[in-house]
Amino acid sequence: MDELWLIGIGTGSPDHLTRAGEAAIRGADTILIPRKGAGKSDLAELREDLCRDLLGEGGAARIVHFDIPNRDVSEGYLKGVDAWHDAIAEAWVGALRGRASGKVALLVWGDPSLYDSTLRIASRLDPAPRIKVIPGITALQALTAAHGVPLNDLNAPVTITTGRRLRDEGWPAGAEALAVMLDGETSFQSLDPDGLHIWWGAFLGMENEVLVQGPLKNVAQEITETRARARAAHGWIMDTYLLKRRD
Amino acid sequence: MDELWLIGIGTGSPDHLTRAGEAAIRGADTILIPRKGAGKSDLAELREDLCRDLLGEGGAARIVHFDIPNRDVSEGYLKGVDAWHDAIAEAWVGALRGRASGKVALLVWGDPSLYDSTLRIASRLDPAPRIKVIPGITALQALTAAHGVPLNDLNAPVTITTGRRLRDEGWPAGAEALAVMLDGETSFQSLDPDGLHIWWGAFLGMENEVLVQGPLKNVAQEITETRARARAAHGWIMDTYLLKRRD
Repeated sequence: MDELWLIGIGTGSPDHLTRAGEAAIRGADTILIPRKGAGKSDLAELREDLCRDLLGEGGAARIVHFDIPNRDVSEGYLKGVDAWHDAIAEAWVGALRGRASGKVALLVWGDPSLYDSTLRIASRLDPAPRIKVIPGITALQALTAAHGVPLNDLNAPVTITTGRRLRDEGWPAGAEALAVMLDGETSFQSLDPDGLHIWWGAFLGMENEVLVQGPLKNVAQEITETRARARAAHGWIMDTYLLKRRD
Repeated sequence: MDELWLIGIGTGSPDHLTRAGEAAIRGADTILIPRKGAGKSDLAELREDLCRDLLGEGGAARIVHFDIPNRDVSEGYLKGVDAWHDAIAEAWVGALRGRASGKVALLVWGDPSLYDSTLRIASRLDPAPRIKVIPGITALQALTAAHGVPLNDLNAPVTITTGRRLRDEGWPAGAEALAVMLDGETSFQSLDPDGLHIWWGAFLGMENEVLVQGPLKNVAQEITETRARARAAHGWIMDTYLLKRRD
């Protein structure tokens, strides 16, 4: 591997792809794609579709599949994730073994900089390839665009955190606007809803996008029920939300 | 005006444009562009270039220019900005008066959701048009991509704030990673640099991109000097940075 390109592809809409992302998919020698597992197969398919679409128009990249190892966090979350990242790096290397792989591209959901571990996994490679990052539209951007709401208020800060941190630590000290990602458990339910407004969305940017917004105390139950229904219907779900204090 | 489209165009590279952004520029009836002022004329030109490039390929939009009113914050920052936003909304309406404007597009630097006031200005329009937001790559994403650094650490939160808030209030309580935008005064100089690492960039995504990173105590002066030189050379500057605590 001479170079490793991490290409942000947005959150499910092929229209999220940037010109730089298109050029990188076309210019790569090898594209590493996780093999379709049982869950989230729509996501695996979106990557395949993007490649077929773009490479049909003149790209020469070879697609190489790799298996995503199982994650075991039974001995602690951070330790489990760390071992999982080691195993993913090994899976990349294993899939490329014996091939002249050249410029290798990975298609990263959202943007490689935000709650994505591809950069961390790539830092395990030895020898270290030259790394190039191409930013992509995040779920948070798809959320605020869909609701037509700014992330921040005028001259005000924004905090972005995970569902896990929100459950463990509650509303972060000093936060005025709070965006929550990677939340598999509707952790907003752990907050005192008084005075909070929520903008929630699932399958953002995709055809089956679902949006709910309103005072948290009025819509928390609607979101929880909508999420459960959508998850049952599709077999998986990805959602994110923004909370702001409102008088 | 039937609809108002806010199109995020990224931070200076035409390669940041998404497929959705391209389609919207091509599909608009009218594109509202601020008239070139004395400063930041490269930015005004980039908007014109994008339009010329895309509309030459089959778009039919009419370009309409408007003058950006002067901002007067002598009676307080928030009050001054509020009056300025009123005046910008009036300038849009004035520029469109007497025209069948249809679907009107504004090309927004970065993403309309992050430290951009176009949504706030648009909320002043009466009657209210239907608003559509198309997300774009932010300076923060261009920064982290250029440095190959993730915004967040594993399962850790990120705070995004402004230079003004950092100067007024110091390091935000509970912040682990801190991204600073709209900082005209290298406000990181107000922080105790011990244990802080900084990733700084100016003209992100543009040909004259400048990057500096390192322990804040080692590189603060280099950044200040680099910024002053680059600003003098170009007549203007836009920069942003990420700070993280490192042991």
